[in-house]
Amino acid sequence: MGWTTSLRFGCETDCKTYPRDCISENLVRRIADRMKNDGWVELGYNHLVLDDCWSAKKRDPRTQRLELDPERFPGGIESLQNYLKNRGIHLGLSLNYGTVTCRNYPGSLQHLEQDAHRLANWGVEYIKLDSCFSPPDQLELGSEMFANYLKDTHRPVVFGCTYPAYINWTSDYNLLDWDKLVQVCDSWRWSPPTDGSWRAVRDTLNLYKRHVYQLQLAAYEKHWNDFDALALGNYGLSDDQKRVQMGMWCMHGSPLMISADFDTLDPVSKELLRNKNLIAINQDDLNYPSVPVTRTGENIQFWIRQLKSIPSTVGALTIINMNSGGITVSFAFSMRTVFSVLPHAPSGYSKLIDAFTGTEFAVVSNHQKVTVPVNPNGIVLYLIQPVLNGTRENCH
Amino acid sequence: MGWTTSLRFGCETDCKTYPRDCISENLVRRIADRMKNDGWVELGYNHLVLDDCWSAKKRDPRTQRLELDPERFPGGIESLQNYLKNRGIHLGLSLNYGTVTCRNYPGSLQHLEQDAHRLANWGVEYIKLDSCFSPPDQLELGSEMFANYLKDTHRPVVFGCTYPAYINWTSDYNLLDWDKLVQVCDSWRWSPPTDGSWRAVRDTLNLYKRHVYQLQLAAYEKHWNDFDALALGNYGLSDDQKRVQMGMWCMHGSPLMISADFDTLDPVSKELLRNKNLIAINQDDLNYPSVPVTRTGENIQFWIRQLKSIPSTVGALTIINMNSGGITVSFAFSMRTVFSVLPHAPSGYSKLIDAFTGTEFAVVSNHQKVTVPVNPNGIVLYLIQPVLNGTRENCH
Repeated sequence: MGWTTSLRFGCETDCKTYPRDCISENLVRRIADRMKNDGWVELGYNHLVLDDCWSAKKRDPRTQRLELDPERFPGGIESLQNYLKNRGIHLGLSLNYGTVTCRNYPGSLQHLEQDAHRLANWGVEYIKLDSCFSPPDQLELGSEMFANYLKDTHRPVVFGCTYPAYINWTSDYNLLDWDKLVQVCDSWRWSPPTDGSWRAVRDTLNLYKRHVYQLQLAAYEKHWNDFDALALGNYGLSDDQKRVQMGMWCMHGSPLMISADFDTLDPVSKELLRNKNLIAINQDDLNYPSVPVTRTGENIQFWIRQLKSIPSTVGALTIINMNSGGITVSFAFSMRTVFSVLPHAPSGYSKLIDAFTGTEFAVVSNHQKVTVPVNPNGIVLYLIQPVLNGTRENCH
Repeated sequence: MGWTTSLRFGCETDCKTYPRDCISENLVRRIADRMKNDGWVELGYNHLVLDDCWSAKKRDPRTQRLELDPERFPGGIESLQNYLKNRGIHLGLSLNYGTVTCRNYPGSLQHLEQDAHRLANWGVEYIKLDSCFSPPDQLELGSEMFANYLKDTHRPVVFGCTYPAYINWTSDYNLLDWDKLVQVCDSWRWSPPTDGSWRAVRDTLNLYKRHVYQLQLAAYEKHWNDFDALALGNYGLSDDQKRVQMGMWCMHGSPLMISADFDTLDPVSKELLRNKNLIAINQDDLNYPSVPVTRTGENIQFWIRQLKSIPSTVGALTIINMNSGGITVSFAFSMRTVFSVLPHAPSGYSKLIDAFTGTEFAVVSNHQKVTVPVNPNGIVLYLIQPVLNGTRENCH
């Protein structure tokens, strides 16, 4: 969990026109202050990632080392790290396995070992290795080599891979070595690069559903399918679409990386990103994957996830409606289906708690049919809490 | 201007599950009440269009006439028309030039004359002829025949064509007879059928920009390029995207057809749809087309429109930012460019009034460079009001 420059600040380096928004020491400090002072760090968002364009345009001509851009980061790495560490924030940086990065900064293709050591020495705690301008057939090996160089440093660095996103594995699962993926990477971007639009969110969720069994095989015990940064807090998602993205990124256990400006965060995004139910679903200790209820198609998806970290809660169920137009649909499901995946309530009754609002939606019997309204581009997400005393308070 | 079932209510005919939302007399009355009581009619939204699925599943077996579905419209056409006329609302209905409609209701292919007379006799004041399941090479002729049958009735019916949307004219302008288009149709859907998503809005606006000169040749004096129904008030657009759609539909003079539920209209959409500046731009008596400032690409568009109906206002300028991610860009333009299209202010100064808020953004000289911030998926739209007394109150 954390914050990244990627979707919002991209490669803005024009500090004259955009003094508040350019990738710079000032931006890092401005964001770090908000992360700490507004309690984001406490909520778990404790990584700050510079995704590209943080380095000087050229390597040091003598040592060939990467440097922070001296004009935009005049204080250098030590001052930057002090600022972050004083606020409990871990620095993340992106490299690229190519001659240049996606945005034409120095690449790491001939410098894997040097760059791994450099960033580890800087105390960087998360490294993303991007894959622009790289031959697909070398990506896997490059990431493996980099991971080994990182391990040699004996520093606790989380390694975020991206190469699955650049390999057409959805056409042939054998194009990826899935065992190696888990050995090499802590997380991996698995879907095509996105722009944070609703179309990208929807396509990513639909693609995940199509390949869910393969993707879930890999993601266990501190290994994560990375769905890419959250677009919440920017300009392209409706309120319903924001709920879908946050809800499903949490149901699917994706890393939660905010890429917005805390100074202009809209209230709906803020509330969603800070929602403790959703964060708890995302961070659940059990880390079981959500199970798709397969009778639904892509336009209506129905997922159930077993949970253990939220008090009184055995799991969560969610329904999303991917239709772009139309009316709010009434979606009916049986609690029998839900309890084919989750532990039963001994009383025979369960509460459904709206994870977005924290309010009780209904108390239902364990074999009851339940009907819920789901907006186009919308979601419902309920925590399932067995009623232990066996009394039926209210039946919806 | 008006309201249509198309995007929101589509072909919902299940009145048991969706009693409030199914295409029916009840829906018409519910919407008509809101249109009248909330002042939509007074604002100019005075058409109510049933876009498909209003008829019985079969023609009358004896007369072959179309009938309103007797279960969903038990009161029949007369009661429906009385209800609407008492509220100052004109009824619109959709037909389809095919054996069946887009949603499998009776088509008008062998019944053009009969259906033209039927709907005219019913006092329908707007007819849309849709083009599903029709051979593209017959569409033009079919619409022409229908228009002639309509003219024979001597009723004042506005005829909305759709056939350009089903012909690949963007690849070859000669595939459409543009003179005939203007003779036959009052308005025409010119872009591919859309679903009201942001992608559709953006693609429509970009397509218009690419073919603007051809499209503008046709749209003059009570002839309109129909950009399709507004998605505002539904679930798929962010607030910035809502502003883009409403702003540009107005700048381009498209018919403004709301397709939302007034009972659940969000405040941002409501304010935009009721914005008198925007409506006045849309309805301007001069009906000059917006002029694209061509040095911009598709991601940033800059349009200027000459106006005459808004007091003190010679025109409007708008800038839209189609980027889906990134920061708010600073866009610079010269007022010289603006006044290469618009009448000059004798004083040499003009006010820029934010059309969305009605507030003054700046007073600028007629040769000044102006810089404005534009969000991703966002828009700025200013009314241009010459300062007649010649004093420079404030210079931004």
